[in-house]
Amino acid sequence: MPKRVDHRERRALIADALMRVAAEQGLEAVSLRHVAAAAEVSPGMVQHYFRTRDEMMVFALAVVRERNEERVRRAVEPLGATPAPRALLRAMLAELLPLDEERRADGRVALAFLAYTAVRPAVAAALHDETAALLAFVAGQIAAGSPLVADGRVDPERSAVGLLAVMEGLGIYVLGGHYPPETALAALDAQLDLIFGADPAR
Amino acid sequence: MPKRVDHRERRALIADALMRVAAEQGLEAVSLRHVAAAAEVSPGMVQHYFRTRDEMMVFALAVVRERNEERVRRAVEPLGATPAPRALLRAMLAELLPLDEERRADGRVALAFLAYTAVRPAVAAALHDETAALLAFVAGQIAAGSPLVADGRVDPERSAVGLLAVMEGLGIYVLGGHYPPETALAALDAQLDLIFGADPAR
Repeated sequence: MPKRVDHRERRALIADALMRVAAEQGLEAVSLRHVAAAAEVSPGMVQHYFRTRDEMMVFALAVVRERNEERVRRAVEPLGATPAPRALLRAMLAELLPLDEERRADGRVALAFLAYTAVRPAVAAALHDETAALLAFVAGQIAAGSPLVADGRVDPERSAVGLLAVMEGLGIYVLGGHYPPETALAALDAQLDLIFGADPAR
Repeated sequence: MPKRVDHRERRALIADALMRVAAEQGLEAVSLRHVAAAAEVSPGMVQHYFRTRDEMMVFALAVVRERNEERVRRAVEPLGATPAPRALLRAMLAELLPLDEERRADGRVALAFLAYTAVRPAVAAALHDETAALLAFVAGQIAAGSPLVADGRVDPERSAVGLLAVMEGLGIYVLGGHYPPETALAALDAQLDLIFGADPAR
């Protein structure tokens, strides 16, 4: 009688190995063979679940994004049902910085994915809608919460582009060890001060 | 009689092939074999000039950085011997954005190098001094040129960290095709407005 195989369990096992290889050796080192060795299965078994390298990469990024969403949800929850825009953006963006080892590992995967898609525009295109939605959300929060918008000193759309770029850039400098997480957090707060005016609560 | 070999010329030929492979297929695809094929020489010949993959990566980034320095030099020259801080930073940072195909290709190499070094901190460490020097330079320009520093609305060090992060982040979003170069330039100008106050010349 053939052994019953739990596909979902096996896929999770292989996905786990994939994320481990990506975090430790870099996503660019991910190959069917590497992942198979880490999962202790055959390369053919890995290929059964992920047919191409692109599929593995896309899956790895999806895992990172799900984890990020969950982190942001947890960070924002204590702020209540109608959080103040600045506090909401602060909680959200600080959570996306690679401030601890778990987020560093995920940040490395995201960075490698960016590098991978920079030469494969078609793989990147799937993310464009999400970026546009995030930009619109951030711009909405700035429009609703910054007193500097009314007199034209702050443009919500442009400063949303800038704010997300700051977050992305700070993450990259921290991942490269150029400065400690505290420097990135201080720069994030300084950026929010520029957009919202100095925070009287700090 | 053995054929005379011009080592410098051959190294340049191999370096060229290396940059071509990196720009077209991604730096993570760079291998002795790939580069040898592109340069139409043997893998052993490539290995004679670049002994390891790390050496090829470091060399590729050095080429990109030299090109960037040359671009910045050319962009800043018309501003004269003592350029205004905001104009200087604007010219410098706009030049580092991937606004045309040449800079996109170089930007992809730089991004791949970042991803590579994020899992190899020792390779990244060589760049830390340069980042610190660049941050100090930018902070000095902000301190010298922004009227918002005197009353404490802008902190030169923190806003220098933020400004370089914006530049890095905008580059990444443009490379990923998330928005066009014009959006990145507009966000860069908005960032300079936040740091220096609205530009009366625009």
